[in-house]
Amino acid sequence: MRRGTNLPAVGGFNQTVVLDLIRRTPDGLSRVEIAEITGLVPQTVSNVARRLLDDGLVIEAGKHIQGRGKPRVILRLDAASRYAVGVHLDPTVITYVVLDLRGQVVAHERARTPAGTDPEETVRTIARSIDAVVAGAGISREKLLGIGIATPGPIDSVRGRVVDPPLLEHWRDVPLRDSVAEASGLSVILEKDVTAAVVAELWTNDTGSDDFAFFYLGTGIGIGMAIGGEAFRGTSGNAGEGGTLVVPGAGLPERRRSEMLGHLATPQFLVAQAVDEGVLPHEPPEHDLAAIDDAFSALVQLADAGDVGAGAILDRAATFIASGLVSVVNLLDFDEIVFGGPAWARVADRMRDEIGRLVATSPDRKTRHEVRLADSSIGEDVAAVGAACLVLDTALSPRTSALLISG
Amino acid sequence: MRRGTNLPAVGGFNQTVVLDLIRRTPDGLSRVEIAEITGLVPQTVSNVARRLLDDGLVIEAGKHIQGRGKPRVILRLDAASRYAVGVHLDPTVITYVVLDLRGQVVAHERARTPAGTDPEETVRTIARSIDAVVAGAGISREKLLGIGIATPGPIDSVRGRVVDPPLLEHWRDVPLRDSVAEASGLSVILEKDVTAAVVAELWTNDTGSDDFAFFYLGTGIGIGMAIGGEAFRGTSGNAGEGGTLVVPGAGLPERRRSEMLGHLATPQFLVAQAVDEGVLPHEPPEHDLAAIDDAFSALVQLADAGDVGAGAILDRAATFIASGLVSVVNLLDFDEIVFGGPAWARVADRMRDEIGRLVATSPDRKTRHEVRLADSSIGEDVAAVGAACLVLDTALSPRTSALLISG
Repeated sequence: MRRGTNLPAVGGFNQTVVLDLIRRTPDGLSRVEIAEITGLVPQTVSNVARRLLDDGLVIEAGKHIQGRGKPRVILRLDAASRYAVGVHLDPTVITYVVLDLRGQVVAHERARTPAGTDPEETVRTIARSIDAVVAGAGISREKLLGIGIATPGPIDSVRGRVVDPPLLEHWRDVPLRDSVAEASGLSVILEKDVTAAVVAELWTNDTGSDDFAFFYLGTGIGIGMAIGGEAFRGTSGNAGEGGTLVVPGAGLPERRRSEMLGHLATPQFLVAQAVDEGVLPHEPPEHDLAAIDDAFSALVQLADAGDVGAGAILDRAATFIASGLVSVVNLLDFDEIVFGGPAWARVADRMRDEIGRLVATSPDRKTRHEVRLADSSIGEDVAAVGAACLVLDTALSPRTSALLISG
Repeated sequence: MRRGTNLPAVGGFNQTVVLDLIRRTPDGLSRVEIAEITGLVPQTVSNVARRLLDDGLVIEAGKHIQGRGKPRVILRLDAASRYAVGVHLDPTVITYVVLDLRGQVVAHERARTPAGTDPEETVRTIARSIDAVVAGAGISREKLLGIGIATPGPIDSVRGRVVDPPLLEHWRDVPLRDSVAEASGLSVILEKDVTAAVVAELWTNDTGSDDFAFFYLGTGIGIGMAIGGEAFRGTSGNAGEGGTLVVPGAGLPERRRSEMLGHLATPQFLVAQAVDEGVLPHEPPEHDLAAIDDAFSALVQLADAGDVGAGAILDRAATFIASGLVSVVNLLDFDEIVFGGPAWARVADRMRDEIGRLVATSPDRKTRHEVRLADSSIGEDVAAVGAACLVLDTALSPRTSALLISG
């Protein structure tokens, strides 16, 4: 049942619309320009601007003289007025970022995820690391809006728990959101890694489309989705599990044909293949994700140096990824796919164009329109940046759903 | 870039909110009840009600006395004030329906799709059949809001063309929307069949959720999606191509292992399997869809009568469908799947519970929450009803996107 909308809701919505516009315009805008672009009446823009100035989110920054009219005061975001912390807990690496109000990364830290560590110890490590990163950037804690944490799924988004990630040992139904909130004294948002990546892409890429798939290559594989300009979360906040898409395992020996994309294209599987085929000398221990990550880097370096066997393994992975993406493009009729995640940068130059060619020429494609492929503009930190964007997003982004009178 | 919202947009939105509520309440409501449910202020409800009465969409129907207060006038939809026509062009059967303003089917007609007929002849047949169905129901043409046509994809939704459906011979880039509009003198909306089915489900099922997958079994297979209470169309209006999802073809002889759901679970493939295995006597001609449809009915009847071979073929199809749906549920985190389409009713009782059991117990599921399975409440006509709903929908349904000031 759709509910109606009323004036207080419209006011709040318009405030976020104006702030969003100012945020996306680094040089600032006059009230008249804001009115022209948003379609809002001047009086509304004036009222909204007053509130934003009072809250310290926006500053008046010089005047703009145009023709013979009255000089216009420029409103500009005060990027240093608020900050958000983002943490990405990947089974292989933990990334920390601090974003200013404009979404720019002002501090950054990465560390290998301690192997076999229990969740409580990890919570303490995360809280200490956040303190260090924020202090190192010279930011006072009262300017922090909160912390966003991106983790592998499945998550319990209502209770803020990490439920049962396949690659994080000892992590079963861990109340990560509340534990970090307690340890840090800040409010915390928990989000699935691939969803956070989509949020980051929507925040920072303002020329992109409102609907796209995000192919995430980390320790595991995910396919996130932006729909209607918002990250799509699904019923329980666990949308994006693209790893169970079945793809034809052509070219693989029978015992390796698990046929699931989330197996066939992971760094761990590609390293195992390389060992099987004598491309890499010996298999790293199954649970030593750091060693597997190093071996994956070695595999990619071999391929880049012209090793035919290493190249063939990565090219085959590209066919698996393309096959899964054709299914997704057919199902959801996307015309854009963004690639990212901790392991993507290493293979991007080799795989992106090949995947693009395979998707474009697939006989299984159902539509003829072009599908654009792009690397995430944010790089390996995309999920951490997205987690921080969620904190900004919750505070600042316009959502039409906010217009409806709540039940 | 999100734009703002202003009062005229809010007024139009609130009118559709109120009409939608009245439409969904067969016994009608008082203005006070409308204000309570929608959260709108009484003055807004009065203004909206006045416009709806003036347009003849709503009538005042008696008074309701409650306690010692003033008797309240009940507003009820005038279901007979407007009608919409829906046509579903399936490669095997063409279905015609007429819906009143409440979405009730008041007239209905089905005919086998003429084999090998050229598009122009089919357009004339459709226009003649619409005239006959509308006249037979005693409805005057000036009460018709328009015609909705559902066809197999891919479609060109901007130009209203049927592009290249795999099972409609001679249908290549056919301007169906404009041709039917010219032949009938009415406005026409063209939609993909599976998207129309989702629209129908959203219109008629007001207890259902806002997000679900629709598994469509007709001459071909589709998987439509409702997201946020609206049918999801994708970039070019061709979302829902679930037929290229790859599923493990376990149990099939090698030459039959095409591994695509849209092949492995279609009536045509199941009939071919039944002939291969001696369950049915002889294969119908490849392009005779009517004969294939009859053979499919015969196969289902054999299974229902206890034929083990026939039952095994349908059970295997259920495993393929369940496997594809697990991928979709993981990717989009749905908790509801609706089943329908021209061929579904015949296999529903046999397959629905088996598919449900397989989805619930699949080791590949990524979340633990329940996934509800239900047959479409509309039955075989779902796409035709949906096409007619689209006509009603365009005129009457609230969309938050309508709140934004257009560029």
